[in-house]
Amino acid sequence: MAKKIVVINDWYGEDLKAEMRKAAEKAGFDIAFYETQEEAADAVADAEVIYGFPNRILSGAASLKWLCLPTAGADAFCKEGVLGEDVILTNASGAYGVTLAEFAVMVTLMLLRRQKLYDDTMRERIWHGQVPQRTLCGSRVTLLGAGDIGQCYARRIRPFEPAIITAVNRSGRTDADCFDEVYPQSALKEILPRTDILVMSLPSTPETIRILNKELIDLLPDDAYVVNVGRGTAIDEPALIEALNAGRLAGAALDVMHEEPLPADDPLWEAKNILLTPHIAGNLTTEHTRRVNVAMFLEDLDNYANGRELRYRVNRRLGY
Amino acid sequence: MAKKIVVINDWYGEDLKAEMRKAAEKAGFDIAFYETQEEAADAVADAEVIYGFPNRILSGAASLKWLCLPTAGADAFCKEGVLGEDVILTNASGAYGVTLAEFAVMVTLMLLRRQKLYDDTMRERIWHGQVPQRTLCGSRVTLLGAGDIGQCYARRIRPFEPAIITAVNRSGRTDADCFDEVYPQSALKEILPRTDILVMSLPSTPETIRILNKELIDLLPDDAYVVNVGRGTAIDEPALIEALNAGRLAGAALDVMHEEPLPADDPLWEAKNILLTPHIAGNLTTEHTRRVNVAMFLEDLDNYANGRELRYRVNRRLGY
Repeated sequence: MAKKIVVINDWYGEDLKAEMRKAAEKAGFDIAFYETQEEAADAVADAEVIYGFPNRILSGAASLKWLCLPTAGADAFCKEGVLGEDVILTNASGAYGVTLAEFAVMVTLMLLRRQKLYDDTMRERIWHGQVPQRTLCGSRVTLLGAGDIGQCYARRIRPFEPAIITAVNRSGRTDADCFDEVYPQSALKEILPRTDILVMSLPSTPETIRILNKELIDLLPDDAYVVNVGRGTAIDEPALIEALNAGRLAGAALDVMHEEPLPADDPLWEAKNILLTPHIAGNLTTEHTRRVNVAMFLEDLDNYANGRELRYRVNRRLGY
Repeated sequence: MAKKIVVINDWYGEDLKAEMRKAAEKAGFDIAFYETQEEAADAVADAEVIYGFPNRILSGAASLKWLCLPTAGADAFCKEGVLGEDVILTNASGAYGVTLAEFAVMVTLMLLRRQKLYDDTMRERIWHGQVPQRTLCGSRVTLLGAGDIGQCYARRIRPFEPAIITAVNRSGRTDADCFDEVYPQSALKEILPRTDILVMSLPSTPETIRILNKELIDLLPDDAYVVNVGRGTAIDEPALIEALNAGRLAGAALDVMHEEPLPADDPLWEAKNILLTPHIAGNLTTEHTRRVNVAMFLEDLDNYANGRELRYRVNRRLGY
């Protein structure tokens, strides 16, 4: 019996499926496609490779040797005991930079332009006059998280002529040349008071849980904005809500929250100047993301079939 | 009696007023500031220079020699008989490129990202799943209007990696190096069928009235988007509404309309996939726009006081 790959995803078109079939055959694998985890539940039993996000059916995947996530976030599979110790885990960090950065630029501008006010009033057919607005031009932008997303974002906002783009990551070092300066997280206390827009794109790891806590939120200027497209766990939400409602922050755009879907009675819904979206920034539906995603899987399938190291392997201890 | 400048605007802060006072004194002028046209109505009677938008009080400005508009649009003062023949007209075209381009990038992304759907559903606290979205990355962008706004927009979207940026203007020529290609308006029939996003930033002149008519709208692909931050007169609105409602266009973002404020019963309000804002894209409230605007006025004040040609003079026949 041939070795088996199970693909779980409902966004790949026929062209990408054909490409995967061809590559699987070359690598000596059978490949089967399922749109949902439920449909794939039986098939994963003898799958050596899963390309998908099988969080609900993982216990049935007894033969699994390699799990390739189509997502950037890998935290759900890095928790102790979720995945067998010998299973290789890869992710698609790098496929989402473009879509996440486009989204993050959009919400940054929506905050600066008071788009929520205009949307509210236009819905009532009220022709609202000009209110004070701000520009990315001249703004001081701090990126908490300087990986693929932060780099894509920095490159895209550069011609908007921000006053400065500061990147903050674990090490305070990066090879990327798209930032004006890079600091380690320990420098946040110095950087946040001189930040107009804080853009967060951190993975969820023990180190990033509630990294933006009350103390750090209070260091941001009252007219600062916060954007989060990484993981909701990185923000102390009650502290953020309090700051927003008290006018100690100008606004926030969150695509990710502590609990998703956000419960109907969560106070985040009614926080002042908040812009919420249902975790759709890192969108697999965009043509670009789909193509890059599948290309990453096939690159590692070739590595896997030939006994080489996998390029997009997740460090399960670090969580990304 | 010293010659007199009347400034009408409520967005200049004390620092910019001080700068203007100093320059006026150097040029041998008295200068007076008013927040509204009504407050300035008496004062304009003996004003040689007005820096403002005095559309309702112009008939009282009997001594006017130079009208400096803080706006880019000059069409209201280019109509036959509105302004005395010898009055010099200047505008602030060039001050708005940054704010208009930031706005136009925002709404472009909001259209591509289906932000209206997510805004609608999040208002109902519905956690909507992923719908097909698109990226600026790989999109074919056509700019109808290749002046300051079009150039600022092109430079800002370049790192998003659009497939191509095509500029269309009257002459088919430009010195700007930010476009991939430039065509005259007569080429629109060839260009629109290969356009994903059409961004319009035209002044209102006899030549641009309803330039985007039914015939041209029909040439756009069904999944194309239209953005207009120039003048509302440039679009045949009934034809646009029909195309949107019939699904022959994916969406449109209009900051300007034929009639402003838009009447409460106008069918534009209910057009499918439309994003309307109340003519706030070219925002004078942004720090950058204010500073550039005043700098342009003071540059020409120096020219005026020294009998030189004014740099930002409007060609009243062309209307911009």
